[in-house]
Formats: sequence, structure tokens, C-alpha cells
Amino acid sequence: MALAKELDIVIPTIRNLDFLEMWRPFFQPYHLIIVQDGDPTKVVKVPEGFDYELYNRNDINRILGPKASCISFKDSACRCFGFMVSKKKYIFTIDDDCFVAKDPSGSDINALEQHIKNLLSPATPYFWNTLYDPYRPGADFVRGYPFSLREGVPTAVSHGLWLNIPDYDAPTQLVKPAERNTRFVDAVMTIPKGTLFPMCGMNLAFNRDLIGPAMYFGLMGDGQPIGRYDDMWAGWCVKVIADHLGYGVKTGLPYIWHSKASNPFTNLKKEYKGIFWQEEIIPFFQAVQLSKEAVTVEQCYLELAEQVKDKLSAIDPYFTKLGEAMVTWIDAWGELNHPNAKAPGGSLNSASGGPPSVNGPAKPPVPPVKKP
Amino acid sequence: MALAKELDIVIPTIRNLDFLEMWRPFFQPYHLIIVQDGDPTKVVKVPEGFDYELYNRNDINRILGPKASCISFKDSACRCFGFMVSKKKYIFTIDDDCFVAKDPSGSDINALEQHIKNLLSPATPYFWNTLYDPYRPGADFVRGYPFSLREGVPTAVSHGLWLNIPDYDAPTQLVKPAERNTRFVDAVMTIPKGTLFPMCGMNLAFNRDLIGPAMYFGLMGDGQPIGRYDDMWAGWCVKVIADHLGYGVKTGLPYIWHSKASNPFTNLKKEYKGIFWQEEIIPFFQAVQLSKEAVTVEQCYLELAEQVKDKLSAIDPYFTKLGEAMVTWIDAWGELNHPNAKAPGGSLNSASGGPPSVNGPAKPPVPPVKKP
Repeated sequence: MALAKELDIVIPTIRNLDFLEMWRPFFQPYHLIIVQDGDPTKVVKVPEGFDYELYNRNDINRILGPKASCISFKDSACRCFGFMVSKKKYIFTIDDDCFVAKDPSGSDINALEQHIKNLLSPATPYFWNTLYDPYRPGADFVRGYPFSLREGVPTAVSHGLWLNIPDYDAPTQLVKPAERNTRFVDAVMTIPKGTLFPMCGMNLAFNRDLIGPAMYFGLMGDGQPIGRYDDMWAGWCVKVIADHLGYGVKTGLPYIWHSKASNPFTNLKKEYKGIFWQEEIIPFFQAVQLSKEAVTVEQCYLELAEQVKDKLSAIDPYFTKLGEAMVTWIDAWGELNHPNAKAPGGSLNSASGGPPSVNGPAKPPVPPVKKP
Repeated sequence: MALAKELDIVIPTIRNLDFLEMWRPFFQPYHLIIVQDGDPTKVVKVPEGFDYELYNRNDINRILGPKASCISFKDSACRCFGFMVSKKKYIFTIDDDCFVAKDPSGSDINALEQHIKNLLSPATPYFWNTLYDPYRPGADFVRGYPFSLREGVPTAVSHGLWLNIPDYDAPTQLVKPAERNTRFVDAVMTIPKGTLFPMCGMNLAFNRDLIGPAMYFGLMGDGQPIGRYDDMWAGWCVKVIADHLGYGVKTGLPYIWHSKASNPFTNLKKEYKGIFWQEEIIPFFQAVQLSKEAVTVEQCYLELAEQVKDKLSAIDPYFTKLGEAMVTWIDAWGELNHPNAKAPGGSLNSASGGPPSVNGPAKPPVPPVKKP
């Protein structure tokens, strides 16, 4: 089940990655792509023994040139740069305040292993199975489930959940500061075709080959009127495109332990435009139609970008800029991912604090620097 | 939370109702409507202390006259007669091979109480909440859930699940004779708008005022080419109409303990046409459109009946008959449920074995005979 050669772990961070110690038994076989947000001169320490490459803002600017404008700064949306520079089939991305959760028996949950199970088994977006994931041991399709649909469709996304601090918006955080998620729901569900969901980037895996170019986390944070909607934006786009292309999106297991709530006042400032805007954005995504000619993720995404500019710019000029950034993202994705592209080359921050970028001014594509 | 004055429990059966002993702590405050299938001269024993009315085939024929043709015989589909003669707002229906299940802590599950919780709290069919039922204690809507949708919609249906023997079709029973459902999934989900599901009648509750006339279990069993699709048929109709009228359908908790698997060879004989036919029926229901003029369940159901006759009769002449029976059902429902209708009057089978129908040849509506 391990996919060490086929999966990268993408971690956006502004701090030393001590949280990896807890994940060592599960993550050490995998390659990490660390996207350092904020001050690029700051040294981010990675525990010994992990194989990683690290990109800071200078690296992103160097690698993407003018196209770096599509990558957010001072926002965890920057993580999508890691999706773009990976060359693997699968991505798992996790926040650095997410720890290993325990299942009801008290055992540590190997979140990554569950994501891999979710991604490698089919999804069932066209009809509801009341006993949840029919591909799990001990389960199956129930009476009345059409046989023609029992092979399912390829799974593009596995969305995991959080014990302890739930992923609430600022108003809910303010109203229920003490609420903790203690309910372990032992289920994996396919989100039906035509239904949107709030995709959280904290504990998320996907098949990069199937849906990667749609995993753009938008323009958030520094210089933008909005934050904390990066993963939501990606989720709406991803779901609409997965539905169009016939791929599945799952949610449920695995759980991680989300250790701390972010500041609700700061969050409210970041979110408040999104809270208004989503009332118009979601109906837009519920109604959006992609053409029959759009048969690749890139084609779908560019059609979506056009419709974003056309239909959402009336809400705020920001959406014109976002639509353009979506196009830039696809351009940059194509540049780094065309068949002859090599890995772009990140920085190496050693534990003793090396220079932020050891690749200097070399232009991409160049080989990456990896720490064994 | 108890709704003794507002909820009837409907039980189709062909045998003595010893299974009620186990349910006594939970069911005794409620009124039971027992629909006796098969030989009407057989005496069905009900444990002492339950308040019930009982209808056998003679009663159904007497009460409905020629319209009794819409009520199936020798099939648990006959249960829907109980839905029709009830005068309560809520119905819970359960099979007589369903026992009290235990939760993971080892406590008995009060299935009825959970159904009532499900029915009395809103549903969320328009957007997915990743932390499941947002109205449960300890849960809420997650970040990114539109605030305009957080009041939800009225819940029409609560579909419960089964531990031990899962509700599999005959082919799956044959392939996996030893499979048991041991997974307790601690969740209640709203099935999104536009998504169909396989509704099982074994452990089911609904709001009769909101959706009752759509809870018709079709023509099955004696004299019909198909069986074991009664609840499926009702589920497809109910979901399409609930979606049209803006009501919610929930599935998940509560679990009951399903004690024994029915014979897979017998089941295969009953099911095999359904297994073919559902491949065309389900796309029909996925595509069906009801008009804006259809604003009551009855109007929706009659439109659906027309479309069943129009579009499904090409599969088999059975669907013409079924479409007509759907109209008859609505006629009969209206007759027994118009504002001045009185209760129709069932039979009383006492423990010592009384006559199958104590109301004799009286025509409906007449007062029911109830055992205190």
C-alpha cells in the first residue's frame, strides 16, 4: 500500500517543522515538498532524517518569474506551488499544526495510509450507498444499487477530517469557542455528483494526474482582499471539474488531530468578504456548465477561469484578477509539467541553517536539491 | 422528545409479534398499526400491553373496496396500507425480524428516539457538511458552509441502518453469505438534492404530513412479476418529490439489529426482473422533472404516475399497471385522509384468538378498534 515512489507530501509553513517528529513513522519513507511562506531569509528547521526539498518566496519568484504572481504570499494558499513542482502521481498535503490522531481503540491513525486507500479504490458519485464505502472490507453495495454503477469511477480527491479543533469559520469560532470535535465517524463517503462541499486543505490528498491543475488555491493573503478561502476556492473548482470529467471526490476518514484554533478575530478580518461573496459564488459553481470540448483538466480550468471573469467580476474586481491568475496558474503548470520538463530545483535549509537557496540564479528547469 | 400522540408504528407481519418484547421499553408508549400479510384467517399474536390496531387482507378489501387492488399481497409492500390509515403526523415502520442493536458502549439503541431526533431537526440537501449532521450536539457547519443555508429545510424521511445482516440483494448474498455488518458509523447525513438512494423499509421513519402520499410501496408479490423492490420504488418516488418540494431525506443512525438473512434463492427469483429493470428505472428517476404547478405531494405523485406510464411501460406492461395503481393509491389516500374522514377501523386479534375482523362488514370510515 505504501506509495513512496509515487506520492509527495506538501507542507506549507512559516516555522520549524517539529510537528514532523510525531509523523516520522508514517512520513519518513516519503519525499516532502516544503513551501516556506513569509520571510524567505528565515531558516525553517526540518527534523533529521526526512527527505525534502524546500521552496521559499525567492525560489518561487526565481522559478516562475512573472508567473509567480499567481502564487499567494503570507497565506497557506502558497501550498499549491508544491503541487505544481511535484512530479509524483499523488499528493498529500497537511498543515503543520496537525498531529497524529487516535482511533477509538487508542491506536495511532496512519492518515496517509487511509488517504492512499481512498485514492486507490473507486468512488461512487452517481448513486448513494447507505452502508458508506462499498469497497471497504466488510461492506458492499446494498440492495437496489444499480449493478452497472458498481465498478465506480477513479477517485481524484480524498478529503480527511479533524478531531479536536473543528474547521469552523470565525463567526462559529466566536460563538462556540470551546467546541471540540470528539466524534469519530468511521466512514468514507463519495460526495455525489452535482453536490459542492467545503474542501479544507489541512488534511487532503489527491491524484495529481487526474485533477492536479485544478488544485489552485487562488489569490489570498498579502495584497488580496480575502483570506481563508484558498481551499474553499480550490474545492469548488475541483468538484465541478471532477464531476464533469467523471472522477470521484471522497470525504471522511482519515482524521488528524488539529491542535490549535487560529485567532477568530484575525480570521474574521480575513474571511468577512468571503462570507458575503460565497453566497453568490456557490450558486455560480452550482450552475456552471463546462463544454463537451473540455476533456482535460486544463481545458476545464481555463473555461472555468473565463466564466469566473464573466460572471463573478460583478461582485468585485478581485474576481477579474483571480480569473487571470487562474490562467497564469495553468500556464505555469504547463511550463513545469510539460513532458520534457525537469524538476525545478528548490532550496535546501539544513538543520544548521544554510543559505535560503543553494541553486542560486539558475533558471528552471534544473534538478532539485534533495536532502536524503 | 417522545411523540406518543403524534407517531404510529407500522409493522407488516405474517407471524406472532414476539419481537415486540425486546422493543417494549421503547415502543409501549406508542400506538401500533399491524398489517397482517398472507392468510387472513391466521391469528397473529401481539404481546400483552401494547396498544394496537391490526388489519388483515379482509380488512383492507373491506375498507378500500375496489381500490384495495393497489395494496400488495404476500409482500411486505402491504405495509403502506398502514401509512394510509394512520392519522398521525409521523410514522415509524420496522420489520419483525429487527431487534434492538447495541451502540459501541454496549447500550441498547433507542432507534425510535433517534428517528424522532432526525425528523425534528432540519436537513441540509443543498450543500455538503463534512462534519455530518450540523444540528447534533458537538457539531456545526464547517468553514465555507453558506450562512444562507444554515437553517436547513424540513426533514421528510429518516432512513435507519442495520447491524449484523446487511440489506444485500440476492447476488451479493450468494457471493458473500457470511458477511455481517459490524461497523457502527456514528453519523446522520442528508442525502443531497438530486441524488437517489436505495431506501430500505426495514427501519424507516417519515413525516406523514410532508411526504405520506408518496410512501407507496407499489405492486409486489402475489400476482406481480417482481418483489423486494417495494421500498426501492417508494424511495425513488419519495426522493424525487422531496427534492422538488424542498424537503430533506436523512440516512445513517439509528441502527437496528437485523437478525436473519432471507433465502437468497427465493430472493433472486423475486428480484431478478428488478435487477434488470432498475438499470432503466433509475435513469428515469434521475431525469424526471415535475412541473412548477405540482406543489402538493399528491400533485407531484400523480405527475410521476403519468410519467411512469409514459416512459417505463416500454420496459414491461407491468409499469402501466403500476402507474395506474399509483393513481388508485392517491385516490384511496384522499378518501381516507380528507379533512372529514374518520379512522377506517381495523381488526383486533386478541391473544386468545378472536375473529379476524370485529368490525364486520361496516363500510369506512368507521371508528377503529384499539386495544388499550
